[in-house]
Amino acid sequence: MDRRNFHLFQPLTYQVATGALSPGEIAYPLRAILKRHRRARVLLAEVSDIDVDRRELQLRSVDGLPAPPSLGYDTLIVSGGSQYSYFGHDEWSEHAAEVKSLESALTVRGRILGAFEAAEMERDRARRAPWLTFVVVGAGPTGVEMAGQIAELARHTLRGEFRSIDPRNGRILLVEAADRVLTSFPESLSRRAATSLERLGVTLLLGRTVVSVDRDGVTVQDHDGATERIASRNVVWAAGVTASSLAAKLGSLTGAACDRAGRVLVEPDLTLPERPDVFALGDMVQVRGSDGQTVALPGTAPVAIQQGRYAAKVVRDRLRGRSTPSFRYRDKGNLATIGRASAVADLRGLKLSGLLAWLIWLVVHLWYLVGFQNRVLVFIRWSFSYFNHGRGARLITGEPGGE
Amino acid sequence: MDRRNFHLFQPLTYQVATGALSPGEIAYPLRAILKRHRRARVLLAEVSDIDVDRRELQLRSVDGLPAPPSLGYDTLIVSGGSQYSYFGHDEWSEHAAEVKSLESALTVRGRILGAFEAAEMERDRARRAPWLTFVVVGAGPTGVEMAGQIAELARHTLRGEFRSIDPRNGRILLVEAADRVLTSFPESLSRRAATSLERLGVTLLLGRTVVSVDRDGVTVQDHDGATERIASRNVVWAAGVTASSLAAKLGSLTGAACDRAGRVLVEPDLTLPERPDVFALGDMVQVRGSDGQTVALPGTAPVAIQQGRYAAKVVRDRLRGRSTPSFRYRDKGNLATIGRASAVADLRGLKLSGLLAWLIWLVVHLWYLVGFQNRVLVFIRWSFSYFNHGRGARLITGEPGGE
Repeated sequence: MDRRNFHLFQPLTYQVATGALSPGEIAYPLRAILKRHRRARVLLAEVSDIDVDRRELQLRSVDGLPAPPSLGYDTLIVSGGSQYSYFGHDEWSEHAAEVKSLESALTVRGRILGAFEAAEMERDRARRAPWLTFVVVGAGPTGVEMAGQIAELARHTLRGEFRSIDPRNGRILLVEAADRVLTSFPESLSRRAATSLERLGVTLLLGRTVVSVDRDGVTVQDHDGATERIASRNVVWAAGVTASSLAAKLGSLTGAACDRAGRVLVEPDLTLPERPDVFALGDMVQVRGSDGQTVALPGTAPVAIQQGRYAAKVVRDRLRGRSTPSFRYRDKGNLATIGRASAVADLRGLKLSGLLAWLIWLVVHLWYLVGFQNRVLVFIRWSFSYFNHGRGARLITGEPGGE
Repeated sequence: MDRRNFHLFQPLTYQVATGALSPGEIAYPLRAILKRHRRARVLLAEVSDIDVDRRELQLRSVDGLPAPPSLGYDTLIVSGGSQYSYFGHDEWSEHAAEVKSLESALTVRGRILGAFEAAEMERDRARRAPWLTFVVVGAGPTGVEMAGQIAELARHTLRGEFRSIDPRNGRILLVEAADRVLTSFPESLSRRAATSLERLGVTLLLGRTVVSVDRDGVTVQDHDGATERIASRNVVWAAGVTASSLAAKLGSLTGAACDRAGRVLVEPDLTLPERPDVFALGDMVQVRGSDGQTVALPGTAPVAIQQGRYAAKVVRDRLRGRSTPSFRYRDKGNLATIGRASAVADLRGLKLSGLLAWLIWLVVHLWYLVGFQNRVLVFIRWSFSYFNHGRGARLITGEPGGE
């Protein structure tokens, strides 16, 4: 059951937002994935409520499609994921789109490309500058990737395409509340990433929190409380994540605790307390270890994939009358890319950066991309852009251009 | 000057509408095309008015971008193209989208795929049927291609992906006012195309005009005035074309005549009467021959391409003080595809159909696609779908699903 008819490979949506890839290349129809599993059924609908006692889902139709009012289950696996949170300022989202959903990534793509178009047409220098100032909020992997990609777009891809402006004069600012980028990585790799970003022309504003966002820019505040105003028509949001609202719902239904990020605390076997028939997994959960302590797990795809496999195994084991040991995350490492031939990799203590890390990043992302055809297409897109800095998918479509 | 930042290869938008290709694969950024032509400038704006005496364009901004209020010219070349016309019933467009623009093609894609989803969820047989009934209005090349693609989608691509319905039971109806499909082709090829369509499972409703379209279906009327109601939640419009409103504007400014389809009549050198500094070309014009008679030219890409080259040559010749002979269209032939390995080709009297015609269609369309990368990507998509009937770009995005 999903609201959308496709699986989206979220680690690459930022590449759609910067015109490097097309939506169809990182998304794959759910029905095509599950075609051969004759007992798997795909339904397009939204879960509006869960009745854990009667084991029933209440459904809401999406996109004008008819939907059955309810659906019974024996075992329920909920993996609603997470979304960006605007620290209680949802009104900021209008001016600071995120790049997690495909639609939002397309909006960002239209805004970034539209900003250069606007600058080309704006004759007033003072009014031109905010169009060429790009602010990325949050220096986690997505924020770093976005800043790097916008820098490459401005410095290389668009070079020579304008007549009134030089896109290389674009300013790219990366705002981060912590004192370093990529806080989930060891400090040495953060430093390498920071150097790579600066070499690409990204200005780092570390130790700053965003206190306001509006149509004309952002205001940031440092540790001492001093504020600074940045005039910008392009703010991209990549900070702060909040769990799907299904987590809170499961918490209230079952008495499971929820943390500040809205994640529900599940048992060591990923089920809800005293509800062995309800699993929750992925970005929307925290896992209680066998010792009672919460296990610190990153909100990444590898965790969700392993949890998905684990939940399926528990169901199979139960049907066979076997028990399953608690979920254990096998950390295969942490990757983030900064730009062309530049990435950092923390592989169980082995720290890599530069070209080698980037090649590993490339292979891993191609490997996990769903659909052989998509792998071939993305590989070709990447090969072209490696050699000529080109970005083929630079279309302004839909509701673009800013306000 | 264009409203959009990309060149769209319109002959393939119908493949976007049926999930065979991604938008980015048939569109190419204008700036990238003209990058190396240092004296060419691209501006994103809409022409709101033309002052032919003062040689000035009045501009309107698009997508919230700033735009200069006006722009002077020495020579103006207008090629505004055409759009589908709903025979004075613009209200039909809400329920019968066309596939000429990229956005509209994406809307159609969402509706076609959404219809199968709706049918899968609809338990009531009577209410399910209209979701699985697809009506294509107009049996020109686009209508034939759409009907063929929907049939392949239903019969092959989606086969085995649903559990409550069999997509192969979908009905695809092709409505045409004339007594044969592809009226721009010789009769023998129309017959071959009709046979191919019927083999794919398309029902031809020839000699029928559409008299109404609403959310629940269409009403068609035959030559004897008898009407028939077809319950359908999926109507695709591919009938009747009207020239860009710029044609009427040029007509009223210069006294040039416009025909019923809104096309302005231009001189043998593609300029407007007594306005040698204003060219008009493409789908929005009719050309007066040297003998004073109107030359019958199809509204196709080859005509527009040759006219574009011709206008450029006239401008160059003038700068060199040379005169240019009148425009002459070199008809290289006419191609239309019906489905996999099936097409018709009328090449200066040489009539081909089947696999050979399809291979010619394939090569020609790859050849004219702008951007080497796009050619490679489209070739790969087509190769995959030839062998496994797959369609990689089957996403329901934006405002999909019908009403």
